[in-house]
This record gives sequence, structure tokens and C-alpha cells, in this order.
Amino acid sequence: PDEAARAKAVARERLLTKPAGALGRLETITEWLAAWQGRHPPDIRRPRTVVFAGNHGVAARGVSAYPASVTQQMMANFAAGGAAVNQLCTTMDADLRVYELDLEHPTADFTQGPAMGEEACARAMAYGMMAVEQGIDLLALGEMGIGNTTAAAALAHALFGGTAADWVGPGTGVAGPALATKTAAVEAAVAANRAAMTDPFETLRCLGGYELAAIAGAILAARLGRVPVLLDGYAATAAAAVLFAADARALDHCLVGHCSAEPGHRRLLARLGQEPLLDLGMRLGEGSGATLAIAIVKAAAACHAGMATFAEARVDGPA
Amino acid sequence: PDEAARAKAVARERLLTKPAGALGRLETITEWLAAWQGRHPPDIRRPRTVVFAGNHGVAARGVSAYPASVTQQMMANFAAGGAAVNQLCTTMDADLRVYELDLEHPTADFTQGPAMGEEACARAMAYGMMAVEQGIDLLALGEMGIGNTTAAAALAHALFGGTAADWVGPGTGVAGPALATKTAAVEAAVAANRAAMTDPFETLRCLGGYELAAIAGAILAARLGRVPVLLDGYAATAAAAVLFAADARALDHCLVGHCSAEPGHRRLLARLGQEPLLDLGMRLGEGSGATLAIAIVKAAAACHAGMATFAEARVDGPA
Repeated sequence: PDEAARAKAVARERLLTKPAGALGRLETITEWLAAWQGRHPPDIRRPRTVVFAGNHGVAARGVSAYPASVTQQMMANFAAGGAAVNQLCTTMDADLRVYELDLEHPTADFTQGPAMGEEACARAMAYGMMAVEQGIDLLALGEMGIGNTTAAAALAHALFGGTAADWVGPGTGVAGPALATKTAAVEAAVAANRAAMTDPFETLRCLGGYELAAIAGAILAARLGRVPVLLDGYAATAAAAVLFAADARALDHCLVGHCSAEPGHRRLLARLGQEPLLDLGMRLGEGSGATLAIAIVKAAAACHAGMATFAEARVDGPA
Repeated sequence: PDEAARAKAVARERLLTKPAGALGRLETITEWLAAWQGRHPPDIRRPRTVVFAGNHGVAARGVSAYPASVTQQMMANFAAGGAAVNQLCTTMDADLRVYELDLEHPTADFTQGPAMGEEACARAMAYGMMAVEQGIDLLALGEMGIGNTTAAAALAHALFGGTAADWVGPGTGVAGPALATKTAAVEAAVAANRAAMTDPFETLRCLGGYELAAIAGAILAARLGRVPVLLDGYAATAAAAVLFAADARALDHCLVGHCSAEPGHRRLLARLGQEPLLDLGMRLGEGSGATLAIAIVKAAAACHAGMATFAEARVDGPA
């Protein structure tokens, strides 16, 4: 991070026409933005939402309320502008890019062994890195993939322990016997891959998916490219958690846009030490929560850059 | 409320390309918006932030960290575009109107008797009602007035009981002996006016201020004019609480944009049964939290109106 830019933000914040600290989290967001964009004042002219899509072999086990065909069908919906994230990007004046990762070839069923081979996982990560193009100044990361809250739960369970049930939730809306099936799949996945998961990246390969590996790659590339990141819900955060498990500072350039109603997300955020910007009961994925949070980050930057100082406005300071 | 418009929103929400309920609170916001705008689909083309400003006799007792001169000085800052709310309105593409209520003549010191006479209080309410002009489709209500968290605490204490200390907080940043002075002023205000406070509107007259009376008036007029309202922080919500105390349904057309770091606000929201849209540690007033929340309401309306249905997008439903 650029500590000089951060220090400039802290110094200017003190001069602006408001009681000290009165903009609350908007002030710390501005400091974070300055540090990770590496400039002062920070600004957001070209925010982008990136959605990675992948298919999961485990979906065949009935872990989702929706058929795996929906992943591909939603690509057409994104392209036609009909999904929630399209409307949210329009509202936030953000670009949207959707990247498909070989949807015709799902990952292997990870209850039987690794989801991905080494080369395939590395390729997905590299693909995600390439999505961080020049000129983006805030990146919201999301995903689409039927079955991927099962992968997220398996990753969280393997990385942070507890029981499978601690990390499994309804996802798109499973309940009753289907929820038990999902929990059993997570247990089986962690058991089947235990020996192979010798480090966090091997865990990603065994229990993740192409879109989750791409998100991990994008987070890494964003840090190198000085692009602050907003993470979306449970699946995106589980992908990010792989990096956190490897290095507890790896997500310092990331904030979490929204706390999902998927119960594992709140638990996961606590492990990562992340306080989400929004908490509105959403549980959709596709970058929706991260995109909505762009408004908060934009507002923070706008206040910091545009407000008058006490001296400029000739407003009296504390009595 | 227009229950037919609300029912149309509920019906359409079920058809959109997302798992049922996956947009969480955005879905209930859309239903609320349809019901109180009285149309389906609801939309937000002309949001407006209105800030009322007033001065308080009690400010002379040293209850604020800032001198009372700041209220007037901030009017120039608003006009020049230098305050936080100016930047927030620009970010949200919302109009901003600031109305001064006779700043040269503060209310009477309410530790000695009523803050306002009957005619002055009624005039301030009427002034607030007139600010709700034709064509506004979402109204964010805020205030500016050195000393007004003291008035807010006094109103909350009188309306909802407890102790003065339950409702008093740092406001612009008082602590130690000044905080004790503020708490004592609230206790004295409630004691001095006890006999006169025979109903909630008399309580407003005794313990409120011109800008708070104007907010109460604006909330009433907005309901009649089918304009949904976003309330700001502690002072604005305390003004709204007067209406709630008179009729527990009086704020059904209002949502609270943000939970202030001022501790009395969370307590007050619990009494009103209001769940704030945002919780970002802000404590600035001037409509800042309500204006920031415009982004959430806009996003909700945009998703509802713009998303494709499962049938339109040819996306499979639950398996």
C-alpha cells in the first residue's frame, strides 16, 4: 500500500467541514482507497464489475435447487441485460464484464477426488488475472455457478475447520433432505481430498471451481495493479479466503461489499476480520452485493475530494 | 398505501430471474416504494434531499462542541457546494434544497420553558409541509442546527421515558463535563415542561426546534403527496418520533437511511420498529445518511423494473 497517499487522506480528512470522524466508515474507506490506488485524492471514474462463471461436477448430486443448465442460461441473460447485476451496474455507472470458464466442461465431482487438475486450476487463476485490465480503479468481483455455495462451504470447512454443517446453507434455496445431501457432499469432499490438501492453493484445486480460481487470480492481479477490490458474497469470499489462508495480509486491498443471508458468509467474514459494507439480506451472488457497495465507496471518495475545509468555508471550529 | 400497486410488485418479484427472495431487503423496499408512490413499477427519477436548519436557545448552555454561529456558516457552505451532503447528492444524482428557519432568532432555552410558542411551532411545521413540492418521488430529510441532538434527546426522553442519560450522546463531539452539562439540560428541559406536554405535538413545541418541527411537517405532507421518505439520523428521527407517538402507523411511508453512531439513535429506532438501511458509523446529520441510502432504494427499483423474468430469459426454474 501507498502509506504516503494514506497519510495525505488522513490529514485532509481532519480539515473538512464536519466534526472529526463524523463520516464514520466513509473516512476509513477513503484512506483505504488512497493507499491501494496509490494516489491522493483517490477517485473512482472507471469502476468495473467482473463476474466469472463456472460449472461444478458436484451439481449432479442435487446440491442446488436449480439445474446446472442455469449457469449457461444466465450467460444469455447477462448479455441481454436482464439480470440483477446488469441493473445494479447501470445504477452505479459501472462497467460489467462476464467471463465464462469452459461451461461445457464442469469440474470433477469433488466428493470423489480433486475438482481440478493442476494445469486447469492454474489456467483458471491466470484467466482471472488477465481480467484485471488497465484503467480500472475499483473492481467488484462476483460469480455465477450452480453448485458453488457447496464448493464455498467445502473450502471454508477445509480452511477453517468446524463441522460441514457450520458452513452449509440453503444457497439458491435447498432445505430438508436436499440440505442434508449438500452437507454430506461437503463432508465427503473434505474427506476424499484430505491427503492432497497440503496448502491453501491445493485446497482451492481440490474443492474450488474454475470461477473461484479465477476470482483468486483476479484478487492477486488487482493488488499488483493497484486496483482496490470489493468482494461479493459467500462463494467469492471463499475464493478470497484461500489467499488469506496463505497470507493473512493478502486481502488488505479488499473490502466485502455485503454480508450474504447465506449463514456461512457471516462466519467466514469473522474469520477474515472483514466487516461488510452492507447487510441487506441478499443472497444472489453474480456480483450483486459488491456492485451495490460501489455506491458507498464512490460516496466516500466524493466527500473527501469535494468537501470544503473549515478554512475555505470560513466555518468556525470547535468552541 | 396503494395495496394494489404493492401486490403487483410482489407478483412481479416472483417472476424475476433470481431465486425467490434472493434480493433480500431490496425486494421489500420495492414493495414499500410501490405502495407509497402509488404506482407500479415504482421508479425514482426525481429524488430530493431537503435540509432544514434552525437554531436552539439551549446551545448557549454549552451543549455542543461547536458555537451556534456554525449553523449560519454552514448555510454558506451548502450554497457553495462544500458540505458532505452536496457531494452525496451529486453522487446519487439527487436535488438538494436547504431551508433556513429564522436562524437569527433561536428557539427559547427549553430548560426554562417551551422552546416555541404555538404559532411559531405551527408555522415551522407548515413551512416543512410546503417544502414537499410536486414531482419529487423520493424525499431524504435531514437537518442542521447546533444544539439539536440535545433537543432530540429531550424529545426521545419525554416521548419514550428512560433516563436522560439513555438518550444523550456526544453529538458533534462533547465529552466529560460538557456531556454532563448536556445530560443535565435534557433532564431540566423535561422537568420544566412536564405540565405542558399533554400530547406529542405539545412535546414537539416544548422540546423541539424549528427545523425539527419542519421535518415533522414534511413527513406529513409527503404522505399526503405519495412521496416515500428516507429519514436521516438522530435529530431527524426524533422529529419523526413525535408523529409515531401520535399514531404508530404515521411513519409507514418512511424508512431510516442510516443508523447514526450517536447512541440514542439505535435505541430510538428500536422503539420505532425501524431497521436502518445502512450502518456505517456516520454521525453528521445534514441529510447525509438518508442521501447515501438513496442509492439502495434506486438499486431496488432498478432491479425490479429492469430484470428479465424466467420466461423472457428462458432460464430454467427450480429443478
